[in-house]
Amino acid sequence: MPKNAHKRSKKAGLPPGSLVHIGEKKAERTKIMIIDYDEQNFQEKEARTVEECFPFKETATVTWINIVGVHDSEVVSKVGSHFCIHSLILEDIMTTQQRPKMEDMGEYIYVVVRMLSYEGRKREVLSEQVSLIIGSNFVISFQENGGDVFNSVRERIRTGKGRLRKLGPDYLAYSLLDSIVDNYFLVLEKLGEKVEDLEEELISDPGRKTLHEIHVLKREMIFLRKSVWPLREVVSGLERAESRLIKESTGIFLRDVYDHTIQVIDTVETYRDMLSGMLDMYLSSVSNRMNEVMKVLTIIATIFIPLTFIAGVYGMNFKFMPELDWRWGYFAILVFMFGISVLMLILFKRKKWL
Amino acid sequence: MPKNAHKRSKKAGLPPGSLVHIGEKKAERTKIMIIDYDEQNFQEKEARTVEECFPFKETATVTWINIVGVHDSEVVSKVGSHFCIHSLILEDIMTTQQRPKMEDMGEYIYVVVRMLSYEGRKREVLSEQVSLIIGSNFVISFQENGGDVFNSVRERIRTGKGRLRKLGPDYLAYSLLDSIVDNYFLVLEKLGEKVEDLEEELISDPGRKTLHEIHVLKREMIFLRKSVWPLREVVSGLERAESRLIKESTGIFLRDVYDHTIQVIDTVETYRDMLSGMLDMYLSSVSNRMNEVMKVLTIIATIFIPLTFIAGVYGMNFKFMPELDWRWGYFAILVFMFGISVLMLILFKRKKWL
Amino acid sequence: MPKNAHKRSKKAGLPPGSLVHIGEKKAERTKIMIIDYDEQNFQEKEARTVEECFPFKETATVTWINIVGVHDSEVVSKVGSHFCIHSLILEDIMTTQQRPKMEDMGEYIYVVVRMLSYEGRKREVLSEQVSLIIGSNFVISFQENGGDVFNSVRERIRTGKGRLRKLGPDYLAYSLLDSIVDNYFLVLEKLGEKVEDLEEELISDPGRKTLHEIHVLKREMIFLRKSVWPLREVVSGLERAESRLIKESTGIFLRDVYDHTIQVIDTVETYRDMLSGMLDMYLSSVSNRMNEVMKVLTIIATIFIPLTFIAGVYGMNFKFMPELDWRWGYFAILVFMFGISVLMLILFKRKKWL
Amino acid sequence: MPKNAHKRSKKAGLPPGSLVHIGEKKAERTKIMIIDYDEQNFQEKEARTVEECFPFKETATVTWINIVGVHDSEVVSKVGSHFCIHSLILEDIMTTQQRPKMEDMGEYIYVVVRMLSYEGRKREVLSEQVSLIIGSNFVISFQENGGDVFNSVRERIRTGKGRLRKLGPDYLAYSLLDSIVDNYFLVLEKLGEKVEDLEEELISDPGRKTLHEIHVLKREMIFLRKSVWPLREVVSGLERAESRLIKESTGIFLRDVYDHTIQVIDTVETYRDMLSGMLDMYLSSVSNRMNEVMKVLTIIATIFIPLTFIAGVYGMNFKFMPELDWRWGYFAILVFMFGISVLMLILFKRKKWL
Amino acid sequence: MPKNAHKRSKKAGLPPGSLVHIGEKKAERTKIMIIDYDEQNFQEKEARTVEECFPFKETATVTWINIVGVHDSEVVSKVGSHFCIHSLILEDIMTTQQRPKMEDMGEYIYVVVRMLSYEGRKREVLSEQVSLIIGSNFVISFQENGGDVFNSVRERIRTGKGRLRKLGPDYLAYSLLDSIVDNYFLVLEKLGEKVEDLEEELISDPGRKTLHEIHVLKREMIFLRKSVWPLREVVSGLERAESRLIKESTGIFLRDVYDHTIQVIDTVETYRDMLSGMLDMYLSSVSNRMNEVMKVLTIIATIFIPLTFIAGVYGMNFKFMPELDWRWGYFAILVFMFGISVLMLILFKRKKWL
Repeated sequence: MPKNAHKRSKKAGLPPGSLVHIGEKKAERTKIMIIDYDEQNFQEKEARTVEECFPFKETATVTWINIVGVHDSEVVSKVGSHFCIHSLILEDIMTTQQRPKMEDMGEYIYVVVRMLSYEGRKREVLSEQVSLIIGSNFVISFQENGGDVFNSVRERIRTGKGRLRKLGPDYLAYSLLDSIVDNYFLVLEKLGEKVEDLEEELISDPGRKTLHEIHVLKREMIFLRKSVWPLREVVSGLERAESRLIKESTGIFLRDVYDHTIQVIDTVETYRDMLSGMLDMYLSSVSNRMNEVMKVLTIIATIFIPLTFIAGVYGMNFKFMPELDWRWGYFAILVFMFGISVLMLILFKRKKWL
Repeated sequence: MPKNAHKRSKKAGLPPGSLVHIGEKKAERTKIMIIDYDEQNFQEKEARTVEECFPFKETATVTWINIVGVHDSEVVSKVGSHFCIHSLILEDIMTTQQRPKMEDMGEYIYVVVRMLSYEGRKREVLSEQVSLIIGSNFVISFQENGGDVFNSVRERIRTGKGRLRKLGPDYLAYSLLDSIVDNYFLVLEKLGEKVEDLEEELISDPGRKTLHEIHVLKREMIFLRKSVWPLREVVSGLERAESRLIKESTGIFLRDVYDHTIQVIDTVETYRDMLSGMLDMYLSSVSNRMNEVMKVLTIIATIFIPLTFIAGVYGMNFKFMPELDWRWGYFAILVFMFGISVLMLILFKRKKWL
Repeated sequence: MPKNAHKRSKKAGLPPGSLVHIGEKKAERTKIMIIDYDEQNFQEKEARTVEECFPFKETATVTWINIVGVHDSEVVSKVGSHFCIHSLILEDIMTTQQRPKMEDMGEYIYVVVRMLSYEGRKREVLSEQVSLIIGSNFVISFQENGGDVFNSVRERIRTGKGRLRKLGPDYLAYSLLDSIVDNYFLVLEKLGEKVEDLEEELISDPGRKTLHEIHVLKREMIFLRKSVWPLREVVSGLERAESRLIKESTGIFLRDVYDHTIQVIDTVETYRDMLSGMLDMYLSSVSNRMNEVMKVLTIIATIFIPLTFIAGVYGMNFKFMPELDWRWGYFAILVFMFGISVLMLILFKRKKWL
Repeated sequence: MPKNAHKRSKKAGLPPGSLVHIGEKKAERTKIMIIDYDEQNFQEKEARTVEECFPFKETATVTWINIVGVHDSEVVSKVGSHFCIHSLILEDIMTTQQRPKMEDMGEYIYVVVRMLSYEGRKREVLSEQVSLIIGSNFVISFQENGGDVFNSVRERIRTGKGRLRKLGPDYLAYSLLDSIVDNYFLVLEKLGEKVEDLEEELISDPGRKTLHEIHVLKREMIFLRKSVWPLREVVSGLERAESRLIKESTGIFLRDVYDHTIQVIDTVETYRDMLSGMLDMYLSSVSNRMNEVMKVLTIIATIFIPLTFIAGVYGMNFKFMPELDWRWGYFAILVFMFGISVLMLILFKRKKWL
Repeated sequence: MPKNAHKRSKKAGLPPGSLVHIGEKKAERTKIMIIDYDEQNFQEKEARTVEECFPFKETATVTWINIVGVHDSEVVSKVGSHFCIHSLILEDIMTTQQRPKMEDMGEYIYVVVRMLSYEGRKREVLSEQVSLIIGSNFVISFQENGGDVFNSVRERIRTGKGRLRKLGPDYLAYSLLDSIVDNYFLVLEKLGEKVEDLEEELISDPGRKTLHEIHVLKREMIFLRKSVWPLREVVSGLERAESRLIKESTGIFLRDVYDHTIQVIDTVETYRDMLSGMLDMYLSSVSNRMNEVMKVLTIIATIFIPLTFIAGVYGMNFKFMPELDWRWGYFAILVFMFGISVLMLILFKRKKWL
């Protein structure tokens, strides 16, 4: 649902940079998780106060501060002022209906994207906003409610597997983006299964419900598209950013995420095309069936209406109706009626109505 | 309504730069409001004559001259000649169906945009033209009728909250644009509610009125689009303008407005897509219902027409009809008819018509 | 009508630059009008022979030679050779179905556009080709038949009002283009009125005629578009032309015409969108009405066909039909029939068919 | 028909540059025509063997070698090796379903386009491939079967009229392209006549045949488009080619051909739009007529079904039916029936069904 | 089917560069074929272990290592580490639903495309992923299952026909791409035949099956498009690559493949347009037939319903019905009924329903 227009009215009239939370309050309490590492060392803790994460600004190690819950303007503004983040950026972080974008602010890079997940029980796609602040030795990530998408990254940092511990905050940011995009494939898998189910239903037993579900899926695709298309620009923006914060060696990894994004877009567009095709097919099968129904009606009516008329004629009560007195009149008329029916059927056969 | 073509005929044949008011006369009397400020001082007054605002051209402070009502060519031309504004620009100010645009004239920048507001009672979107002249130490704004959109900016100047008092006329112009774009979100909220209402109506109880309202909303979207798309170019034009009038520090704020504009466009496009989908759904539900109606008709006709024929046969008055004399003829024929009906119903069941 | 393909066959096989008139012969006789002016002097005359306008090539004053009627190849070729115009340009002038374009030939600039006017009686849009040759001290304009669109320009030269007499041939050319584009607004006004009339008709009393007129207007829009889109390139081409023939000060005026052209395009596109929407609405209202008709038929048939059957049963002539002998049989059956009808109506009510 | 995919299988697996003729064999025997000329001299002959045209490679005069029939790989390969043409180019010449393109090979320029002609008897558009090799002092043209499109060029060379004899091979190539594009206008004229005929038929007497012909024309437009769109790139490619083979003075002529190409594209697109509009109109007139048919059926049924029921009631054989014995029962019932009919008709009148 | 989203979930959460096979396991066992050649020498063998192909990295001759089956991560990772291939590239090779792309890695170029083949028995298009690693003296190709598409290239190397043996690995890579694209034409031929068959079926005997097959073909076109559009970028990327690995002389050959790719795209788009046209035609023929069926029903009903009513009237049992006693009443009423029928038929004739 295009809820991004909603609630924004709260902010109309306030000066730019005002920190007002726009959106649903998804997390109960703001949670701050700090992971600090370099190739040798690793430290992980949950901060009780926002001030606990301030010392990490100066360390030489890479620090990942993950803040879950963006409704608390105090937390956001404290982090913002300590890490020297522009007030408009802070406003964007708290306004949870941002269009994915990337902004190179010199001292840091701001990235905002949408994280999707598929809610199994309600069978719907959930969406939350993720903001990343990429500094020279830290990454701050803001989530609306802490899903488990970043767990694999955390695990890789903990175990020290892969390149993650050896490389800088740009690689960490890439890893976070990569895990978000990888999750898109999971969501698309689920939607793809729905599309295929609908397709089978369309052939075996199409009904109103099928139509409704095609429309619902089509609308879900509209919103997916809205999240994914700008993501492409975000990733290619990062790749081409002439910032000292993004090392050249990270380029190939970003290109890889970019390729995945294109693939996601391709798949979304393919599903859209397929759903349009299915809608067309539904409509043409409806008019096909209508045609069939009409044919049955016409055949029945065309055969029996004349016969009923004939029966009606000999049901008239005229005094003088010579046929009525004939010995074989009744049988003759039955044979005549039968003849007409057979003739009609032959005619229908020729017209390919049967 | 595309009224921009209307009334323009008044001007055909006049030399370019002729000051003729094109459009509805929305304000009774031209009202001139002057706000003059710098970080320390603040002065606000309503000018009785247009000449009262002339001295402010020379002051070092930032002056905002807000002129409500553009139908009075004398006022516009006097302001124009004192502030050295090109006659074509003056013509554009008075022709109230301009496409949003931005023109860098060296000494000043001319910006014209559309301000939207939602009229609650009539449930329709109102639109007025706002022109801005951004000079080195003043901003002149021309409105058609003074809505309350700029009130929050005024309030911020009065109270000195935020950056507004500390920065120059470019930041003032940005603030005005920002408040206009913020208002778009309010309008979209209202339209979004309408779209959602229609959607529910479409599922629960679709009728002719629903269809009509979808069409009305679709047309409103056409006109919204026409206002919003060029706005994007206006804002990005201001951002990239290599003018000494726009300070570099204002860039990030303009980029923020730009992002909001993109979001407005996105939302408008999404609503358009949703309305198209709803129209499709309406049409397919109409043909679905037609199909259902046809089925009922066909079932009734297919069962009863043959039965009526049989009844007609035994209503004939032939002298010699052996069945009529049978003791159980009547009951036999009733059973026979019942049998045919049951058979038909089984057939319909198989064809999934029931 | 796309008549540009027509008649072109006359020219197939001729060498390029052959002067053959392609198109309707609209003016009886070629008329040559000369206006010669500078800030102080002004002279206007109608030339009897084409040679009369030759001396003006050398004068320091600005000369406007307006030639009405392009079917006379002798006149065109004489003018062409005296003013050193390329034979391909002359060919374009005489081929009256040119796509609007602009060509910078160094010594002169060639501009060809379409002039539209609305014929009130026949209620149709007329179109003629206007070619402009802009030289260093002259403008030659070729019209198919002399409409009154240029009269206002003539008047302004005569009276010396505005800038026209003070500026060069580039400003004159601009003035001519401006008056042509201004005339587009008049045409669009008329078409806009038609669109609005149709819209009302669509709601109050749609019929076949409405459908036909929507189609006719849609087609008119196709042809308007074809004239207007390339005009945009023509004007922006003139504006960006690095030619000494177009003074820099004329730039802002051309930009103004450009804005008008964009507005015309916007309006045309809006009308197209509206007409498409109206077509959709017409079609859906047709299927809506069909649905309604079907419902009435189905209700009538579903109620009366079973009743007729029952009547038919008791019209059978079986010897032994106990009900027939009952005292209240007839009334019982009437009550039964009435009960069935009421039941049916309740059912229809529930299905929202009534 | 998209036959370009057909027959290509013959070549799959062969090394690139293999000379295999792909396409229909349209000419019986390869014919080679040589025209050699400069401003003073002119010579024309038909070569019996391919070797006869070899000496012309060295002469200072302009030579036009026109080869009709591209199915003979020996002729093509001999010409190719003598004039040093790349084997891939030779392959393209023989594969007669090329997309129009232009390739600057340094020593020569290769151009391949489609030549269209309208076959009057079968009323269909024929298409053949024309390849041009433009060298420094020769043009070699390959046609599939020698149409009469180039005759006018030949005639102009023979008579020495126009610029043709004075200018080089680039102007000759331009003339050939120009005559091909001019021929497109002839084809479009014929198709335009068909479109107009169909349009009249659509209003006066639309039927299945009309529908079929609209579809056939629409498909012809698809294929025309496929030939014409790339042609635009070919001509603009030639114009902008920084090759010494294309003299600067030829630029304006190529620009002229370019304008014609754009006009052809415009016309094709307009016809496509018109045909789409006609299809829409056909469909809406079909559903209009269906609606009308339904109305007639409904009116008849709604009037007579209740009446028949009433007649049926009084046809029942109940012993005790008091009305039957009334003196004026029969006439009363007739009047009653008449009243119902009139009431129904008034109702239909109100609903605008009559 | 858009199966590229499927199975990807296996990889979500793994660090980038993890070698997990994504896709169907099409080949039983990984097969490694080595062809080593220069102009004089030629050697071909099947490697039993992956290590056998390592020595060829250093030789001066051109080596083509063809690996069939990409499910074995050990083989891929060994080859990868010996030939210094980036782990992300290896991941792409094993993830068999890649979008065609080309990546210049400096030391080698990575190309991934889709190879299509038409499965005759099941009448469906099969698709497999082919990856090419182009080094300075080797080409490594990865196939999912070894089709016979590369056989012609192998044969040309063996026999030494053509340029293949004389040129480097870039020409070998070109030859492989060329044979893949050539195969596209074969697939399009088959699909084109299907399209034509469907077209005939549509005219002679359209039914549900036709509709279904149009939809199936349309969907196949969606997927073909998805494979072919990015291929264009791949080939033009190779052509413009400023890599020392691609010699300039190979440019014209790549341009040739590029042209073929464009032709494939053109054909796919044409088929799409044709299929859309066919769908429209199917739908309009369905509504045409519905219209016809409705007419027959209406004619029958409109003639016989009134007649049946009249017969019903004279079947009423009123005591006093004077007509019943008339001598010629019965015949009069028969004549009257006949008259009404004839009148109706004349009316239908006029309305062009017959």
